[in-house]
Amino acid sequence: MDNIDEIIEKLENGEIKLHQLENIMESANKAADIRRRFIEKQSNTKLENIGSYSIDMTETSKKNIENAIGTIQVPVGVVGPLKIYTEDETIETYVPMATTEGALLASVNRGCSAIRKADNCHVSITNNQMTRAPAIKTKSVEAAKKLKNWINDNFERIKQEAETTTSHGKLLKIDPIAIVGRYVYPRFVYYTGDSMGMNMVTIATEKALSIIEEENDISVIALSGNLCVDKKPSAINMIEGRGKSLIAEITIPKDVVEKTLKTTTEAMVEVNYVKNLLGSAISGSYGYNAHFANMVAAVFLACGQDPAHVVEGSIGITSAENDDGDLYFSITLPDLPVATVGGGTRLETAVESLNIMDCKGSGKVERFASIIAGIVLAGELSLVGALAAGHLARAHKQLGR
Amino acid sequence: MDNIDEIIEKLENGEIKLHQLENIMESANKAADIRRRFIEKQSNTKLENIGSYSIDMTETSKKNIENAIGTIQVPVGVVGPLKIYTEDETIETYVPMATTEGALLASVNRGCSAIRKADNCHVSITNNQMTRAPAIKTKSVEAAKKLKNWINDNFERIKQEAETTTSHGKLLKIDPIAIVGRYVYPRFVYYTGDSMGMNMVTIATEKALSIIEEENDISVIALSGNLCVDKKPSAINMIEGRGKSLIAEITIPKDVVEKTLKTTTEAMVEVNYVKNLLGSAISGSYGYNAHFANMVAAVFLACGQDPAHVVEGSIGITSAENDDGDLYFSITLPDLPVATVGGGTRLETAVESLNIMDCKGSGKVERFASIIAGIVLAGELSLVGALAAGHLARAHKQLGR
Amino acid sequence: MDNIDEIIEKLENGEIKLHQLENIMESANKAADIRRRFIEKQSNTKLENIGSYSIDMTETSKKNIENAIGTIQVPVGVVGPLKIYTEDETIETYVPMATTEGALLASVNRGCSAIRKADNCHVSITNNQMTRAPAIKTKSVEAAKKLKNWINDNFERIKQEAETTTSHGKLLKIDPIAIVGRYVYPRFVYYTGDSMGMNMVTIATEKALSIIEEENDISVIALSGNLCVDKKPSAINMIEGRGKSLIAEITIPKDVVEKTLKTTTEAMVEVNYVKNLLGSAISGSYGYNAHFANMVAAVFLACGQDPAHVVEGSIGITSAENDDGDLYFSITLPDLPVATVGGGTRLETAVESLNIMDCKGSGKVERFASIIAGIVLAGELSLVGALAAGHLARAHKQLGR
Amino acid sequence: MDNIDEIIEKLENGEIKLHQLENIMESANKAADIRRRFIEKQSNTKLENIGSYSIDMTETSKKNIENAIGTIQVPVGVVGPLKIYTEDETIETYVPMATTEGALLASVNRGCSAIRKADNCHVSITNNQMTRAPAIKTKSVEAAKKLKNWINDNFERIKQEAETTTSHGKLLKIDPIAIVGRYVYPRFVYYTGDSMGMNMVTIATEKALSIIEEENDISVIALSGNLCVDKKPSAINMIEGRGKSLIAEITIPKDVVEKTLKTTTEAMVEVNYVKNLLGSAISGSYGYNAHFANMVAAVFLACGQDPAHVVEGSIGITSAENDDGDLYFSITLPDLPVATVGGGTRLETAVESLNIMDCKGSGKVERFASIIAGIVLAGELSLVGALAAGHLARAHKQLGR
Repeated sequence: MDNIDEIIEKLENGEIKLHQLENIMESANKAADIRRRFIEKQSNTKLENIGSYSIDMTETSKKNIENAIGTIQVPVGVVGPLKIYTEDETIETYVPMATTEGALLASVNRGCSAIRKADNCHVSITNNQMTRAPAIKTKSVEAAKKLKNWINDNFERIKQEAETTTSHGKLLKIDPIAIVGRYVYPRFVYYTGDSMGMNMVTIATEKALSIIEEENDISVIALSGNLCVDKKPSAINMIEGRGKSLIAEITIPKDVVEKTLKTTTEAMVEVNYVKNLLGSAISGSYGYNAHFANMVAAVFLACGQDPAHVVEGSIGITSAENDDGDLYFSITLPDLPVATVGGGTRLETAVESLNIMDCKGSGKVERFASIIAGIVLAGELSLVGALAAGHLARAHKQLGR
Repeated sequence: MDNIDEIIEKLENGEIKLHQLENIMESANKAADIRRRFIEKQSNTKLENIGSYSIDMTETSKKNIENAIGTIQVPVGVVGPLKIYTEDETIETYVPMATTEGALLASVNRGCSAIRKADNCHVSITNNQMTRAPAIKTKSVEAAKKLKNWINDNFERIKQEAETTTSHGKLLKIDPIAIVGRYVYPRFVYYTGDSMGMNMVTIATEKALSIIEEENDISVIALSGNLCVDKKPSAINMIEGRGKSLIAEITIPKDVVEKTLKTTTEAMVEVNYVKNLLGSAISGSYGYNAHFANMVAAVFLACGQDPAHVVEGSIGITSAENDDGDLYFSITLPDLPVATVGGGTRLETAVESLNIMDCKGSGKVERFASIIAGIVLAGELSLVGALAAGHLARAHKQLGR
Repeated sequence: MDNIDEIIEKLENGEIKLHQLENIMESANKAADIRRRFIEKQSNTKLENIGSYSIDMTETSKKNIENAIGTIQVPVGVVGPLKIYTEDETIETYVPMATTEGALLASVNRGCSAIRKADNCHVSITNNQMTRAPAIKTKSVEAAKKLKNWINDNFERIKQEAETTTSHGKLLKIDPIAIVGRYVYPRFVYYTGDSMGMNMVTIATEKALSIIEEENDISVIALSGNLCVDKKPSAINMIEGRGKSLIAEITIPKDVVEKTLKTTTEAMVEVNYVKNLLGSAISGSYGYNAHFANMVAAVFLACGQDPAHVVEGSIGITSAENDDGDLYFSITLPDLPVATVGGGTRLETAVESLNIMDCKGSGKVERFASIIAGIVLAGELSLVGALAAGHLARAHKQLGR
Repeated sequence: MDNIDEIIEKLENGEIKLHQLENIMESANKAADIRRRFIEKQSNTKLENIGSYSIDMTETSKKNIENAIGTIQVPVGVVGPLKIYTEDETIETYVPMATTEGALLASVNRGCSAIRKADNCHVSITNNQMTRAPAIKTKSVEAAKKLKNWINDNFERIKQEAETTTSHGKLLKIDPIAIVGRYVYPRFVYYTGDSMGMNMVTIATEKALSIIEEENDISVIALSGNLCVDKKPSAINMIEGRGKSLIAEITIPKDVVEKTLKTTTEAMVEVNYVKNLLGSAISGSYGYNAHFANMVAAVFLACGQDPAHVVEGSIGITSAENDDGDLYFSITLPDLPVATVGGGTRLETAVESLNIMDCKGSGKVERFASIIAGIVLAGELSLVGALAAGHLARAHKQLGR
């Protein structure tokens, strides 16, 4: 105990830096304890709950965070079962979602119920890739164009070089190669297997750049030149796709729309048209949907995905169409970066969440992405349905006046 | 125990629904336990860590989640101290960030160090508002225009009606009122105090709509018509602002750039120009920045904010300019929805995180938002600096060949 | 003649500059003749048709062009009659369109025919404004915010100052006032009567800036800071409107759709949905329409409008909806800068074109804008109809196989 | 004469339709005369100038317009000489521009002067393509994905089929193939030689679709599905390019900036940064430039290009950078559809305008596009320079107070 007070004193007077505690203490969990106590003292507050955790900080402090003081607890619940058909398998599973937004799980659950009743929700993965696009300065516009041609002509060499850095990653193409003035932005597109892949593609691209630099008179301004586009909303990711690109669709029979969603096909088609298409169009939005981000965020959080990638998952289009009275409903998710290995998926609670769906580890990422697409469809169905039901309720109330 | 097995059996055969457990069990925590055990059995897995939590589910299961099975643990660490100046106060505080992305806190910490050395980081809040824009159908384009005029003419009445639903909220304006064909999208703009305000503005807008409906021959298609724009990337939020709109700026002396960021003003200005401006422009991106989303997500997660709102927080512009050799650096965050009361801020770990910064409760939201802006600036500084340093390192390597 | 050769020689050896000819020659038409002959000689080509014109260059060379060598001839035809209803009047008129794109007038003419048969095309003007937004540099973010407040607080003074420069223009508001870092972009919004207004608002804004500069420690970087946004596609103009904002709508009876447009309501609704909404959404386009630009360009060219403003006129949304089997069709044109006085409208052929529609001079601009909206609707109807008819034809062909 | 009155009477009572006049009269010019007189009578106005033209309507009425009544005259002047270097040649030429915006040519002329003095303006063409993207409906998302794969697998067959319709056109790729729900948008990308190519690619794509339809169970909703994107502002065209993609650059020595542009490198860099980058970013604009549209429109009009394509030409980025005191300046034009054969280029005055620059006919389109890029650069230089000079003047005035 004396020892602890002593260390805290040294932290206070600067003899020890906060980030050095892992080197000093016998375990990472102890280091987090000391650091938390230091922060408690500094801020004159109690951090008991942050300090009540079951995970092991040893690996976490090396791979996932610096200056740990404990963990945040976010409530996690389940919805489902969700039943979807992919090209490979039929999936029927409960799905964990972590959130603090009351009513979200109840709403998604209602969507899952409609999906089960219709029993024809299909999910397809239309793209599977991760990208990195450095920014390169050349001497002139002519040199920029030459560099573009050189990259195209030497693709196989570049690919070979990039792939020396990874056992799983494959460089699929370098496309597009945008040029602005004398700057060149080649978009390296990789297959990254079950990992989300940002680190993999960064390392591979850096290696690839070394041979590009050797043979061309250029200057790499930044390893990421924002044509990637990582964690920022963009048209290029909507058009070209990033992470997994998925589409889920369902045809909900008229009576299921009425009984489960308490509305009509016509009303849902109208709400989707006026809100998700016209409303988003006039707003200059890349989210032609009701609330993709809610479902993406809650599954991401439960399963150790990067919450900053919710930005990309919020992009996409919901379509509702009247198929002879039944409701045809689809969601298009062009840009969903996900993983079942690496990053936050190694954390104890993430492992457990992924295990609920049999989605942990190698060979599972397509299954996991497909489940998210199904959940996004469930959530969209339910909210568009609720808005439509509210619309109908208002209409009846007005008639009754 | 027998009792538990019995309940699980009933859950299995459908006699009890998952969401009914809170009604049956003596406590919400017990309900979560049973539900978790049911899911463990269904998925043939162990959920020990999800079951190891310290928070009390009683309120949580009413306000924040349905079908709880426990909590997710996300490692949280601290960076700082961050030192910033707002119009009201000087803030110097450690800042909790929850993430699983290794190196993020170390990077932000470096940014905090540069900020402390420069000691002139100023943060201003330029807008403070929350919005909701319903979609309304009228009989004709002429009726749509009349409705727009009616709303403008009756603003005071509408305001009075809307504000009957809230003690804190104030309807500031209804603007813009977009019209697409015969559909009208009035954007209700509220001041919402310390709460994020989405629920408040939804309820208030619904009330306001009732008098609009009474006196106009209209049909409310959806309470939210996507001109709000909630949790979707959009130009309108960038232009008009949503949540808190903040700008943080700093002038970093030349020698601090060199010693702390290991690069030069010139290199940072160039990286920012080529990546954050040209690169984002050619990508059709609303994120003219390096990685706002990372910092926003990590503080949001630590402090019980809605992670789906990271989508909005990812929008904005980083500017780096050469002021006589020193680095002028600013970040503009037009769209940051945050709260210090309500929503996820009541959760035990969120309370503790907010307490570290003296940001919990009433009267604290501007302080909290300002700290996030400071942290975003720290993260941008550090990453742009690192890219610039990498650029310089490459240049030297090439020269050395 | 000798004299002419002599002048050309002086032009060749640089003793006279091309732009000085108006000062030397007895008339502007003569100056254009000499200049044309000089260019003929330089380029060793004949410019007979460019030299065959009837307009008087005297005013034109002062107000509309420098270094004139003659005129371009663009074929102009008529479509119609177009019959529309505005809030003020019923308009039935032939409409001149200048183009070189074969089939365009035939197509629009077919749309006019459908409009006449339905006889219920209504046009509303929902906004009438011209904007100019300078870019202002301040000392700091705090100063930027103060400037914004100062502008809001001193609106009446600024308005008074701005309006000293114009007899017709009225400063309606300064909104939004965007801030990026230490830069401020106040969007000055004016009513400009029958002129397009760009010059008017530039002069008025420059005057207004003088008092803003006097009382604030700022630096005006540019009179136009691209938040205006003039002649560039933008979300802000779509959201806020610029020039005239118009909406035209029509309900076309089922049988007119079938007989005149040779298709069905269902097919047209589907084409519009899949092409103009989903297709434009996935492209990151601000043109949710089939070809607004074609109609806008052709009427603009006939009537002396600025063809660079076609950029703004291309923005907007076409909606096609099934109203109990009839086709409800609307076009929303948020950003149409037009004039019936000033600029190119004084040219002889523009005057004649405007006269065909009784649109020349004061008090006519709303009539003129409404006619353009009607023509845009006619063109959209016809092209969407033709695509739908092609779709049906293909479907039949497939069935016949 | 009696005959004419008789025909007009028949037009009035509907016995003859306006578009039938070409069949009745001995010449197209006569048909235009009668039609013009009919319109004069209907509108009670004189159309003398519209009737004063030198072009021959025979071909024009077949290829370029219907229902002709004459021509519009637009004043055309010259700027230059413009001196630029392409990869193939050095070009020094006067350039015709048709406009009614006073001061435009004078401004561009000043830019040409600065370009001549610097004598190092280089233009590169980085892409040369025209696109058409139909919208196709499939039975399901899975079928949509299969169609995408089928198209990729059968590219050579599709290419062969498409190219049967054209002697010059080449199908380069079908990419991207976007999918939204069950709809597929394959973007056909062609090389089209010296023609602008819209007609060519439409016909070729229609042919290509016939084999796609034969072997897949699909329904072509529309030959154009708005992923093309024709005549509408879009991110995809900015990213992928359309028409000719060009970049022009120049380094202007410090003293030329000062003497010719009356400003400083620093001031121009600042204006470009604050207006063309930050200002356009915050506006949600695809035009990161000052006024590309003005120059594109004026050359297009002079040279028989489609003025609706100015929409696409307005997209792009201007960059101004300080190269050791000298001004490096570039303009990036990703989307410039142009032609030197076909369309409006056959018109007499267009031929003459193109001849001034030796740009008429086969093998000239790259030369022509390069000249436009040079003129756009000249116009941007001049306007950014003027704004910067105004900025400096204001600064001096303030200092003098």
